[in-house]
Formats: sequence, C-alpha cells, structure tokens
Amino acid sequence: MPARDFFHQAVKNALIRDGWLITHDPLHIEFGGFDFFIDLGAESLIGAIREGKQIAVEVKSFAGASSLSDFHAAVGQFVNYRLVLSKADPERVLYLAVAEFVYKSLFATGFGQMAIEAHRLRLLVFDEEQESITQWIE
Amino acid sequence: MPARDFFHQAVKNALIRDGWLITHDPLHIEFGGFDFFIDLGAESLIGAIREGKQIAVEVKSFAGASSLSDFHAAVGQFVNYRLVLSKADPERVLYLAVAEFVYKSLFATGFGQMAIEAHRLRLLVFDEEQESITQWIE
Repeated sequence: MPARDFFHQAVKNALIRDGWLITHDPLHIEFGGFDFFIDLGAESLIGAIREGKQIAVEVKSFAGASSLSDFHAAVGQFVNYRLVLSKADPERVLYLAVAEFVYKSLFATGFGQMAIEAHRLRLLVFDEEQESITQWIE
Repeated sequence: MPARDFFHQAVKNALIRDGWLITHDPLHIEFGGFDFFIDLGAESLIGAIREGKQIAVEVKSFAGASSLSDFHAAVGQFVNYRLVLSKADPERVLYLAVAEFVYKSLFATGFGQMAIEAHRLRLLVFDEEQESITQWIE
C-alpha cells in the first residue's frame, strides 16, 4: 500500500463535514493483474441530488520539487484510475483533491484550464487549514 | 532542466541508427508560462513515407520502486506534452520511448493495452543493449 498523502486526513475530514460517509480508505481495486489503491472511497449521505452518489478521491499535495512533474503524475493517475474504474466500478466518479493554493498556482492557469478540459479532470478543491471543501469542479 | 533519463543516450543512438537527425536535446517548449522539456526532438532523413517527419521523444526508464507509479507518471507526461505540442508545434508527433522489458511487463499486459488504446499512446520500443529500435507503436 503506498504512503498516505500529506493532506489525506484533511481531505477525509472535509468530506465528512460535507456529508460524506468514508467507505474505503484506501479504495483497493484489483484489475488486470495490478493492484490500484485510490486514496478514498465515499458515499453521500445527504442532498436530494447526490444522495447515494459514490466517489473515489485521489489526494495530491504537490509537495515535490517540480510542481509540473507533480502535475503530470497527478494527471496520469487520474486518467488511469478513471479507466480502471470505468471497467471495475462504473458508477463511481473519480475526483482529484487539491489544496486551494495548488489550484490557484497550477490548475487555474491557462495551461491548467486547458488540461482540465482536454483530460476531463474532476477536482475537489479544499482549504487545508479549515479542512473544508471550497469547490467541486466537474 | 530536468535530469536526463538513464536510457537517454541509448535512445538517441537508436534513433540515429534508424535514420533520424537529432534536432533538439532536449526539446524546450515555453507554453502558458511553463517550461516543458521533452527529452529529444528529431527529424527523419530517410524513407519515402517519413522523410521530413518531425517527432518528439520522451524517454522513460521505469527505474522507480513502483512500476505502476512510473506508468502513471509516464502517461501523464505523454498526454500533457501531446496537449502542449498540439498548440505549440502541431506537426510534431510525440512518442514515449520504453525498453523491451518494460514494454513486455507493463504495456503488453491487458491493462497496458487498454491504456494504450484509451489514451492513444504512441510508443517507440527499444533494445537498450543493442541500442536499436525494435517497434513503433502508433
């Protein structure tokens, strides 16, 4: 099992506050002879629209030396996990959890926006100090 | 400029042997306020069909502790570089260079083949000892 991301607990707390039940920590999927571990699996407990909605959340801190390398790695994980989920758990929707400051410095840039659109990324933006979700980007 | 990949020189030699002129080492693209460095840029000198064809090659050794993490990172680099090239240098075709043993253990698996198709990966498979290209996967 891979090491937990630095913001793992903060995102978990933010989801619980937002009305989600954490069902998997991590979400383990065995597929094609490989073991995939997505950080969290959760199910919504409240909200008329999203009740029963199942999500998978990969938490990325972007704590590496090159934020662009982290960006590539996060995009690769996202598109591969989405591919595996589409076969193994097609109802579950995948999100990449990134802190506000990462969203602003990378994802909100021209290149970041282009990548979000081209790769159809879904983001959960969180405030790491408040441990709250500030934005869902679909 | 990022550190050169372990197999950088082997791929460069394999390309030269195959009739390519190395035009960039690395290929630097400035886009949207970020600097992207793709390992190699090359142009074909021979071959009726491919004469003048321009390529960009990202070399991946997969020398990390988890080959699946390396796989995610390589896929992320590939789809992001392809996105940037489509805007900044649309005639140039991007390839991921991987050694035979990596191709067999990862890309030739069921999951690997599914990822190649879903992400439309292009591969240049090389023999790292012979320093020769064994397969182009389009």
